[in-house]
Amino acid sequence: MLVPKRLSERETERHRDTQREMDSDYGLPRELSGLQKKRALYHPELPPCLQGIDVRVEFGDQTITSDSANARVICQAFPHTYGQPLVHFLRPTANVPDAQIISEHPPIRVGVVFCGRQSPGGHNVIWGLHNAIKSHNPTSVLLGFVGGSEGLFAQKTLEITDGVLSTYKNQGGFDLLGRTKDQIRTTEQVNAAIATCQALKLDGLVIIGGTTSNTDAAHLAEIFAEIKCSTKVVGVPVSLSGDLKNQFVETDVGFDTVCRVNSQLISNICVDALSAEKYYYFVRVMGRKTSHVALECALQTHPNMVILGEEVNMSKLTISDIIKQIADAVQARAKQDKYHGVILIPEGLVESIPELYALLQEIHGLHSQGVAAENIPSKLSPWASALFEFLPSFIRKELLLNPESDESAQLSQIETEKLLAQLVELEINKRMKEGTYKGKRFSAVCHFFGYQARGSLPSKFDCDYAFVLGHICYHILEAGLNGYMAIVTNLKSPVKKWRCAAVPITVRRLCSSTFY
Amino acid sequence: MLVPKRLSERETERHRDTQREMDSDYGLPRELSGLQKKRALYHPELPPCLQGIDVRVEFGDQTITSDSANARVICQAFPHTYGQPLVHFLRPTANVPDAQIISEHPPIRVGVVFCGRQSPGGHNVIWGLHNAIKSHNPTSVLLGFVGGSEGLFAQKTLEITDGVLSTYKNQGGFDLLGRTKDQIRTTEQVNAAIATCQALKLDGLVIIGGTTSNTDAAHLAEIFAEIKCSTKVVGVPVSLSGDLKNQFVETDVGFDTVCRVNSQLISNICVDALSAEKYYYFVRVMGRKTSHVALECALQTHPNMVILGEEVNMSKLTISDIIKQIADAVQARAKQDKYHGVILIPEGLVESIPELYALLQEIHGLHSQGVAAENIPSKLSPWASALFEFLPSFIRKELLLNPESDESAQLSQIETEKLLAQLVELEINKRMKEGTYKGKRFSAVCHFFGYQARGSLPSKFDCDYAFVLGHICYHILEAGLNGYMAIVTNLKSPVKKWRCAAVPITVRRLCSSTFY
Repeated sequence: MLVPKRLSERETERHRDTQREMDSDYGLPRELSGLQKKRALYHPELPPCLQGIDVRVEFGDQTITSDSANARVICQAFPHTYGQPLVHFLRPTANVPDAQIISEHPPIRVGVVFCGRQSPGGHNVIWGLHNAIKSHNPTSVLLGFVGGSEGLFAQKTLEITDGVLSTYKNQGGFDLLGRTKDQIRTTEQVNAAIATCQALKLDGLVIIGGTTSNTDAAHLAEIFAEIKCSTKVVGVPVSLSGDLKNQFVETDVGFDTVCRVNSQLISNICVDALSAEKYYYFVRVMGRKTSHVALECALQTHPNMVILGEEVNMSKLTISDIIKQIADAVQARAKQDKYHGVILIPEGLVESIPELYALLQEIHGLHSQGVAAENIPSKLSPWASALFEFLPSFIRKELLLNPESDESAQLSQIETEKLLAQLVELEINKRMKEGTYKGKRFSAVCHFFGYQARGSLPSKFDCDYAFVLGHICYHILEAGLNGYMAIVTNLKSPVKKWRCAAVPITVRRLCSSTFY
Repeated sequence: MLVPKRLSERETERHRDTQREMDSDYGLPRELSGLQKKRALYHPELPPCLQGIDVRVEFGDQTITSDSANARVICQAFPHTYGQPLVHFLRPTANVPDAQIISEHPPIRVGVVFCGRQSPGGHNVIWGLHNAIKSHNPTSVLLGFVGGSEGLFAQKTLEITDGVLSTYKNQGGFDLLGRTKDQIRTTEQVNAAIATCQALKLDGLVIIGGTTSNTDAAHLAEIFAEIKCSTKVVGVPVSLSGDLKNQFVETDVGFDTVCRVNSQLISNICVDALSAEKYYYFVRVMGRKTSHVALECALQTHPNMVILGEEVNMSKLTISDIIKQIADAVQARAKQDKYHGVILIPEGLVESIPELYALLQEIHGLHSQGVAAENIPSKLSPWASALFEFLPSFIRKELLLNPESDESAQLSQIETEKLLAQLVELEINKRMKEGTYKGKRFSAVCHFFGYQARGSLPSKFDCDYAFVLGHICYHILEAGLNGYMAIVTNLKSPVKKWRCAAVPITVRRLCSSTFY
C-alpha cells in the first residue's frame, strides 16, 4: 500500500509555523500539477467600471419586496437593514446624475470566511477582494478566517498575501482557508463573531456561501447595525446549487463549473448506456433543495428522463406516482426492444415528495427533542411509521441521520436514486408477473455525482465571475454599505459588458425560505 | 419531466431502414455535440512503416513460453497455432534480410466484432482497419457485427463505410456496433461463428476486446485452423483494465483514457476532502481482476492509501487485516487532528481477499449446479456460511448475483468500498469505546468510478494507438496470419517511433488465467 503523498507533503510543512499548528494545512503553499500550474497563470478580466482606481457609486431605487405580507415580516425582522437601495458601480466618467465618485482610499481591514459547501471559484473571490484592496491602498489588510465559521468564532486568521494566494488562484475547493460548521446563527455564535470583528478591528466581514450563509450574513448585518458595530457585512453568492438565483442574482459562483463537469460525466454515462444496452442508470446530482443543477444537466445531455423536485412538489406527486411514471417509461421502451436509459434525479427530491417530507419533518422534530436515532422509529406517528417500515433498510438508516446545519436533511447522504431504482425494479417485476411488462429483466446502476464535481477546477466563467465579485465586495465596503450582497448582471455577455452592483441581502427571496 | 431527446432522435431514424429494425440504433448517424464534432476532426498519425501502401513483413523468432510446464499445456490445447513466430511490420525500404514485401493487394472481406466491456478508443480500431483495407483495395469489404457477439452468431452485419464512421471517429463507447454476450466459447457459439464466417466468405475476423475475448479469439483461431476454415482470426487488445499487459503488449486501448478521467475525478475528491476535512472517501475504480487502474490513478493523484489486489493476494491478507490497516491509518491521522482522507480500492479486491474468494467460489459452484440465488445461503459450508452471515446485508445480496460471462463475480456490482467503509466504522467505534481511538466520529463517503470513465471521449494517445492497431490488423490478415494479436511497441516515444508487430495470442500470459 502506498503511503500518503500529496497530503503528507503539506503535513510536513505545517510544523514550520507553530502558530498554525492546530489550524490544519490551510493556506500553506503546495505543489501544483501541470494542469493546475497552467490554470494558475490565467488572470481574470475586469469589466470597464472596475478597471480604474476610482468608481462612481449610484444609489438606485429602494429594493423592497413586491409581496406586502412578506414585506411586513422582513421589515420587522430587519428594521435596520431592510429597504436599502440598490447600488450600481459605474465608471468615473459615466454620465449619471447623483452618482458619487469615491476618490479617497484610506486603509481598511477586512475579514473573509468560507461558509457552506465548497464551490469551484471560491478562491477567486478572495483573490479579487485582495487584488482590489491592495490596488487601492497597499497598507490595507485582508485576513482570512482559517477553518470556516469556527475560525471566525475562534479568531484564527491567516493574512492573505500574494504569496499565500499564488497556488490557489483559479483552483477548485475551499482549501485555502477551509470550512467547518457553516453556521453563524446561535447567540453564542453571533457573539463570538462580534467579538472577533471588534478584536481584529475589522471594517468589513465578507461571507462567502449559499442561501444559508447569506441568510446568516443578513442576520449578522442587522445585529451589527443595531449594536452600532462598525464592521460592515457583505455576502457573496457562491453555491454550486445555484439556489440564490432571483431577479437580482443571475447565477452563483460554481454553478457553471458543476453543471459542466456533471454534464460531461452524464454524457459519458449516456454513451455507456448506448454501448451495452443493458442498464438503466439512475444518476443523482448534487444541488440541495433546488433542481437547478439537474435541470441544467438535463438540457445539456438529454437523458431519457429527469425528475424535477419543484414539479413533484407542485403536482404533489407521491413516491408511487413517480415510480409509476418511471416504470411506464421503462415498459414503453421495452416494447421497442430497449432495455437501457439514463434518469436524472435531483439531490433534494426526497424533500419534495410530500409523504417523505412529512416523515423527515417528524424525524427532525424527534431529533430536536433529543431522541436518539435508534429510538426514533418507535416514536413516529402510525402513518409515518407505516411509510418508514415500507422503505428499504438502507434508506431508513439514511433518513435517521442528524439534520444539517440549516435543519434540512443530510440530502447528500440519502440515496434517493437507489430507493427509486429498487422500487422501480419491484414494480417491473410485479408487472412481469401480471404479464403487462414483457421483455428482459430490469437492471439498474446507481450514481451520485457531487463531490467529484464540486472539487473541480473552476471554469473560465467562474474564475472571472468570482474575481469580479471579490472586487465588488471591496467597493461595497468602501461605500460604507452594510447587509449587501455583491452582484453582477448581464452575465450572458462578454466580461466587458458586465454590470456591477450591490443588492441588500434582505430583498425578497434572497434568503433561504427556512429563515422566514 | 423531460421526454428523451438524444436517444429518441436516433430512435426515429431507425425506421428508415427496416433491415436494421431489430438491431437497435447501432451504426446510425447521429448529432454530435460541439466538443464531439471538434474531436471528430482529428486524424490520427501513423508510424512511418504504415504510411506507404507496401509493408515489409519480417518473421522473427518463434514465440514460445519460457515456462516448460505451461508450454506443454498450451501446446496441447493449441496444436495448430502454438509456437508461431513474432512478426514485425517494417518500411519497404528497411534493410532487413529475409523480410518480404507484400505488393499485391487482392480484395478481402473482413468482419469485426466488439467483445467485452466498452473501452475508449474502440471505434478507432474499426476506423483504422477500414482506412487500411480501403486504401489498399477500394473493392475490399469491412462488415461490422451489430450487437456484439450475438450479432456475430446471428449474422447481423452493417457494412462499414466512411459515412457510417463519420460520427464515430475519435468518439467514446462501443455504440457504433454495440456489445452483448461478450463470449464465443460454447460449442453452439463457436459453430455459429464458423457458420457466419463461411456464409459471409470472410477472409478475416477481427475480435476487439480484453483478456476473455482474446482467449476466445485464440480458441477460435485454433478451431478454424483445425477445420481448415479459411477465415483468419485476429485479436486487438482493447480493455480499460489494462489486464492484457505483458512483455509483448505494452498497454491496452482505453487504459490511458480511463486512468486520466479517473485521476481527474479522484483529484477533485482530494481537493474536496481538503476543503471540508470531515470525510474519508472510499473510491473504488473499475479494472476487473487486476489493480492496474487503481495503481496508475494512485501514482497520478497521491491519495492517502491505495489497496492493491495483487499485494493482498500475495500477502494473503484477510478482510480483518485490511480493516486493521485502514483503521490504524485513520487513528494515526486522528492524532494529528485530521479526519479526512482518500482511499482507493480496485474493483477486483473482493476476489483477492482469500476468504471472500473462497466464499465466492462456493457461491459460483452452487450457481452452476442450478441452485437459485435465494437458496444458496442455506447450502454453503459451515465456514462460508459463518462469513456470509457476518457480512452486511447489501453485500450478501451482491455476492449472490449471477457470475459474468467469464465466470468471474459481477465485480462492478459488488460494493467493496462500502463493505470496507462500514467495517472500518465498526472498528473505529470499537476502538473509541476501548479508548484507543480518540477524536471525532469516523465518517465515510463511498464512490465507484467506472461507467463515467469508460464512456469518455478517448485521449489523443488512445485515438492514435487504436487507429494504428486497426491498420496492423489489416496487415496481419494480408500476411495470411491466423491466431495473432496486433501490437505496437515503443509506445512511450512519439508515434513516428512506434514499432508495429503481431504476436501469437497463445504466447504465455496473454490469455486469461481462467482458460488454462
